[in-house]
Amino acid sequence: MKKILYLLPFYLFTLLPLNAATVASPNGNVVLKFEIDAQGRPTYEMTYKGKAVVLPSHLGLELAKDKHASKGLKETDLMEGFSLKSEQTTEFDETWQPVWGETRDIRNHYNEYAAVLQQQKEQREIIIRFRVYDDGIGFRYEFPQQENLIYFLIKEERSEFAMAGDHKAWWLPGDYDTQEQMTQESRLSEIRQRFNEAVNWGNSSVATFSETGVQTSLQMKSDDGLYINIHEAACLDYATMHLELVDNKTKHLSNKLTGSSNAYTPAPKFSNYQLPKPYTFVSHLTPDATGLKGAMQTPCETPWRTVMVSDDARDMLSSNLILNLNEPCKLEDTSWIHPTKYCGVWWEMIVGKSRWNYTDEFPSIQLSTINYQTAKPNGLHAANNEKVRRYIDFAAENGLDEVLVEGWNVGWEDWANMWKRDVFDFVTPYPDFDIQALNDYAHSKGVKILMHHETSSSAQNYERHIKEAYELMNRYGYDAVKTGYVGDIIPRGDHHYSQSMNNHYLYVIREAAKHHIMVNSHEATRPTGLCRTYPNLVGGESARGTEYEAFGGNRPDHTCILPFTRLQGGPMDYTPGIFVTKLNEWSDNTSWARITLAGTLALYVTMYSPLQMAADLPEHYARYMDAFQFIRDVAVDWDESIYLEAEPADYITVARKAKGTDNWFVGGKCDENGHQSVVRLDFLDKGRKYECTIYQDAADAHYETNPQAYVITKRTVKRGDTLKLNEAPGGGFAISLIAQ
Amino acid sequence: MKKILYLLPFYLFTLLPLNAATVASPNGNVVLKFEIDAQGRPTYEMTYKGKAVVLPSHLGLELAKDKHASKGLKETDLMEGFSLKSEQTTEFDETWQPVWGETRDIRNHYNEYAAVLQQQKEQREIIIRFRVYDDGIGFRYEFPQQENLIYFLIKEERSEFAMAGDHKAWWLPGDYDTQEQMTQESRLSEIRQRFNEAVNWGNSSVATFSETGVQTSLQMKSDDGLYINIHEAACLDYATMHLELVDNKTKHLSNKLTGSSNAYTPAPKFSNYQLPKPYTFVSHLTPDATGLKGAMQTPCETPWRTVMVSDDARDMLSSNLILNLNEPCKLEDTSWIHPTKYCGVWWEMIVGKSRWNYTDEFPSIQLSTINYQTAKPNGLHAANNEKVRRYIDFAAENGLDEVLVEGWNVGWEDWANMWKRDVFDFVTPYPDFDIQALNDYAHSKGVKILMHHETSSSAQNYERHIKEAYELMNRYGYDAVKTGYVGDIIPRGDHHYSQSMNNHYLYVIREAAKHHIMVNSHEATRPTGLCRTYPNLVGGESARGTEYEAFGGNRPDHTCILPFTRLQGGPMDYTPGIFVTKLNEWSDNTSWARITLAGTLALYVTMYSPLQMAADLPEHYARYMDAFQFIRDVAVDWDESIYLEAEPADYITVARKAKGTDNWFVGGKCDENGHQSVVRLDFLDKGRKYECTIYQDAADAHYETNPQAYVITKRTVKRGDTLKLNEAPGGGFAISLIAQ
Repeated sequence: MKKILYLLPFYLFTLLPLNAATVASPNGNVVLKFEIDAQGRPTYEMTYKGKAVVLPSHLGLELAKDKHASKGLKETDLMEGFSLKSEQTTEFDETWQPVWGETRDIRNHYNEYAAVLQQQKEQREIIIRFRVYDDGIGFRYEFPQQENLIYFLIKEERSEFAMAGDHKAWWLPGDYDTQEQMTQESRLSEIRQRFNEAVNWGNSSVATFSETGVQTSLQMKSDDGLYINIHEAACLDYATMHLELVDNKTKHLSNKLTGSSNAYTPAPKFSNYQLPKPYTFVSHLTPDATGLKGAMQTPCETPWRTVMVSDDARDMLSSNLILNLNEPCKLEDTSWIHPTKYCGVWWEMIVGKSRWNYTDEFPSIQLSTINYQTAKPNGLHAANNEKVRRYIDFAAENGLDEVLVEGWNVGWEDWANMWKRDVFDFVTPYPDFDIQALNDYAHSKGVKILMHHETSSSAQNYERHIKEAYELMNRYGYDAVKTGYVGDIIPRGDHHYSQSMNNHYLYVIREAAKHHIMVNSHEATRPTGLCRTYPNLVGGESARGTEYEAFGGNRPDHTCILPFTRLQGGPMDYTPGIFVTKLNEWSDNTSWARITLAGTLALYVTMYSPLQMAADLPEHYARYMDAFQFIRDVAVDWDESIYLEAEPADYITVARKAKGTDNWFVGGKCDENGHQSVVRLDFLDKGRKYECTIYQDAADAHYETNPQAYVITKRTVKRGDTLKLNEAPGGGFAISLIAQ
Repeated sequence: MKKILYLLPFYLFTLLPLNAATVASPNGNVVLKFEIDAQGRPTYEMTYKGKAVVLPSHLGLELAKDKHASKGLKETDLMEGFSLKSEQTTEFDETWQPVWGETRDIRNHYNEYAAVLQQQKEQREIIIRFRVYDDGIGFRYEFPQQENLIYFLIKEERSEFAMAGDHKAWWLPGDYDTQEQMTQESRLSEIRQRFNEAVNWGNSSVATFSETGVQTSLQMKSDDGLYINIHEAACLDYATMHLELVDNKTKHLSNKLTGSSNAYTPAPKFSNYQLPKPYTFVSHLTPDATGLKGAMQTPCETPWRTVMVSDDARDMLSSNLILNLNEPCKLEDTSWIHPTKYCGVWWEMIVGKSRWNYTDEFPSIQLSTINYQTAKPNGLHAANNEKVRRYIDFAAENGLDEVLVEGWNVGWEDWANMWKRDVFDFVTPYPDFDIQALNDYAHSKGVKILMHHETSSSAQNYERHIKEAYELMNRYGYDAVKTGYVGDIIPRGDHHYSQSMNNHYLYVIREAAKHHIMVNSHEATRPTGLCRTYPNLVGGESARGTEYEAFGGNRPDHTCILPFTRLQGGPMDYTPGIFVTKLNEWSDNTSWARITLAGTLALYVTMYSPLQMAADLPEHYARYMDAFQFIRDVAVDWDESIYLEAEPADYITVARKAKGTDNWFVGGKCDENGHQSVVRLDFLDKGRKYECTIYQDAADAHYETNPQAYVITKRTVKRGDTLKLNEAPGGGFAISLIAQ
């Protein structure tokens, strides 16, 4: 479809008196109203099919005082005293093709409203730009270059999102350093009382800021049946946004984290900032080491703040609003980027059966002084030649593209949480990992090794080594890296989601792209659709992944929430495929995965990602090769995706058409209550037959008591047929439909 | 001389009862006494020829509380509860040859005492190691690797230096970010009242911490005629030390700087830390962004804390104690390191006559979006092809080795103090600087261009570009770089002299060495003798240099203090040679250099450096070519140096024998009072004649009223002759003695 850019017809855009305007989405369902209030504060509200989504809410930023103000840094807030200087409305409609994705084509169709706001007293302007889609809105602040606004420091962004009721919400505690909590489900009014319970889960990097602080993407459901999601898009060189809820007990909004004591310090009351009414979320950015939120130079803009809405939960999952709000692909050549199915030397270490580190001989490691060649091996090092060869064989035999090997490089003896700067060099293998021979062996079998760079959050150390590390990857034929950011950020005082760390992650993606390397970034900031612009960002973690099945477990509904929240910004390397869920069957780990075997197969379809791992051990898969066949068969790139059923934290059913084929794969996943799914095969080609293989929970399956009870059935189906599928508690199903 | 290492004869070492020991220096002049006091605190005292230098003073470190304590970080202080587990005394005597230096040979002769101290309750040990020289002591803390001390965080080092009286001191205000103040001369008791006056000098990066905080190297003189100097040696991956004076008004020692308000926050009283008595200095380390002073991993050690002492001021200048306390050279090949005389496209920019930046067209610069090729030149850009060629010609004609060119690379339009991270890329020249042609031209004339990398203190940005920047230098034949750290450190919250920044400077030196690049580091931390270990660190600034003659001026005695203070740690790139001292003779700058022409010639001898600049403009030198002859002739590397006269802030006279020759050069420099110098030529070879050229102030010369009045006389001299030389106020003399 050709790109169209024209002035809106009048019915979509009405200029109201008193600096106010109304803009409707292309189909009219979403309506945005913008005005300047009596104090000169930018104010917006939003409806969906006439129902309130966002009540009138103010927009603005507080700027920080700085000793360099006299040299051009501006300090007066961008909060009030604005008048509308001019405004522009346009319609935009184009269809673009992602390098990889849930669908071959993505339509980007919105009506845009840009308000040029003048702050008379300061003689400066900003632009607030709204894009109104049929499934939500995005807005951002833009700061044109101008004499009176060249550099500024952000004390806090104050974007308000006034909710129309005490919605149900699926939320994570707002935290500057971790996103790996279990999702909480509560009314907005219950967040404060639930907060500390939600926080208290034992991660070393906890850095919360308010007892009503939550993360985005935040999924909500209103009593009148609206699904509402607040997140952000295109967060580049800017701090990640949290939301602080104003509730009945709020006296002041919080200030930055004070030390490591988890004391919630109320901010000094902003002189002109009137506390909004309860059920209003206010943006709260991640601070740098000094407590400030951002250093800006015009021309620049904030990320898009997004409010998605629908009365159908499936629209939350099929929405492309966040991808659309990102810039088009900036990589000229994307031929080297490919969806990937992989296994890895990983799960047995997570479970505790083997180790990343090679030796236990030394109390601590200083890389420059340790001779690993003569060190005494602990006998538990997983990334050894023999084991890696076995995984390569397994991958080659089962159509997997790559083998992740963690713990291949020196430094794992004391890597985390000791404030070590120079933990890894990213280029030196352990003595029992023959990097040349193993890569040669893998390549001879059509498999690649997937590189692993755990930074232990010493971002400075990683940046010092990154060029050599990527050159080594190029030399040995690696084309993808899993990065990790476990522990506290070095330089000390910084946080995982600050402006500077977001800049770091982007730096890594760009450097990787220069070397034709795909990135799968763990513990990095939550994604905001940047994979459209940099499609070598093929995956990420940034949420509680499968590893927590070995650290106490994930709730059965976890994977029925993530697509509504974490996955809004981009694919997740959830690493599904745990067939042997009771870990003490083969280790000393007493944790267990709260999912049935059929349920974990479903995740390869319901948890969209171009990067999918078969995370369990080859010997475990060997016991269930009939079920593993689905992992072998399932595609990782798609021409079409149809969400058939969805309800947050309850169930998700989706059908996807494999890229460049006529084959479909269907996945259904449910929570602890089980689900009866009815799949109408209306999406199949008319008049064509399909070999249908169904992997589903047995009648007596249960995620706790009987997880490996599954049934595989084969039949031939055609368009219009209906499949009734039983999903056990914590279970699900997976279907392959191969066109005949 | 062969290295000797043996147990001390008994007379040098006496075991006293009650955990006490006494160690004398090789000639017995310096005596150190060490004991454990009743509270188990390590305690030392020091005398010189029987006079007290340091009264009994405690040693120890406070450790910080940290959330990772449970994972192995230790938090209990290393302050008290110690007992002496064992001790060792050794004598060491060797002579080594520096790659460049004031003398061909350096003798390193000391008696060492190492006390192994056990903290019973914590079941851990540290070592305090003393080296006792004839001209002072060094001591450091060593932390062996052990089960109960693997990682720790330093809250503060508490090394005390209890002075025996209200000495006169030459001091700079303690500051985390600048060392460029004018030296204050006062009694210790007067520091507090003088402090804010001393601070208030307008640098943007002021970050003081206490009204009695001072920097090292701190030169003092006691009423009983002792010259005492406190500094440090071998500060590597550790925060730079300041000294906080306890005076009669001290209630608590200070805590870290709070924000940017210059508020001096008293530290919470340390429970076991008893405030020492007045005239005691206590170490105060530079904090990181969180306020902590260091993250340590055993085995490790602190830098050496040094106390130099003599009753002859000349010994302060000839001492090699700080170099000796550094590790031997770690570079295998040093053939590419060479002393250098240079001129540069620099002074006219400092004065304000021309500029670093190429264009004034843009309010601010984002390198990725600016097209300099089409930008409108401001016509004032100094680093242009024509001008650089003229400087290359001047260097070639006058025997100068290199030409510094500042402002050659894009980004200077808005480079400092705006919190810009990505200021420079260090590889892209301005359109009017043809990097290939200019280097080719220079090389054809036997000259090199000296690279300039201003980082604007965005250390992160420099580290991201350093490899490409050095590769570019190698490609074009540069072999030296002047680095700069103007403005506040990025990452934000860090300071110029913190552990992490000291690690950065070392990283730069090491990366440079890999590329055979010499480093001259401006605004970096003050040197501590690291040039012994890394002799490619050929110079530095780290003090108030000649540039301040264009920013209000330096006092005439400034260069009679620096050799006692700043130069203790290594050579300074002072950039002398300003012949036209009244800047408004050729610019709009009303500042003026407080030095006579003969005095500035003296600096090439008195201010030892292997890197010497002829800083004034070629056209200014053209007016005084007879005097400039001395700059052409003077050596920059020496076989021998003899300090003939010295008194801090009054006068310095030194004779040096040029490396590998029989020629000598003598320099004398005095303060605002003038000086009558008597130079006995006892150091010349017996029976040999020397052509002696004397450049001295005319009888009516004066740094303010008649600075360019000089007299050049030639005669033939021999050993035993005496020269009587008149030094005008703010003046001096220079002599070349060419062996016939």
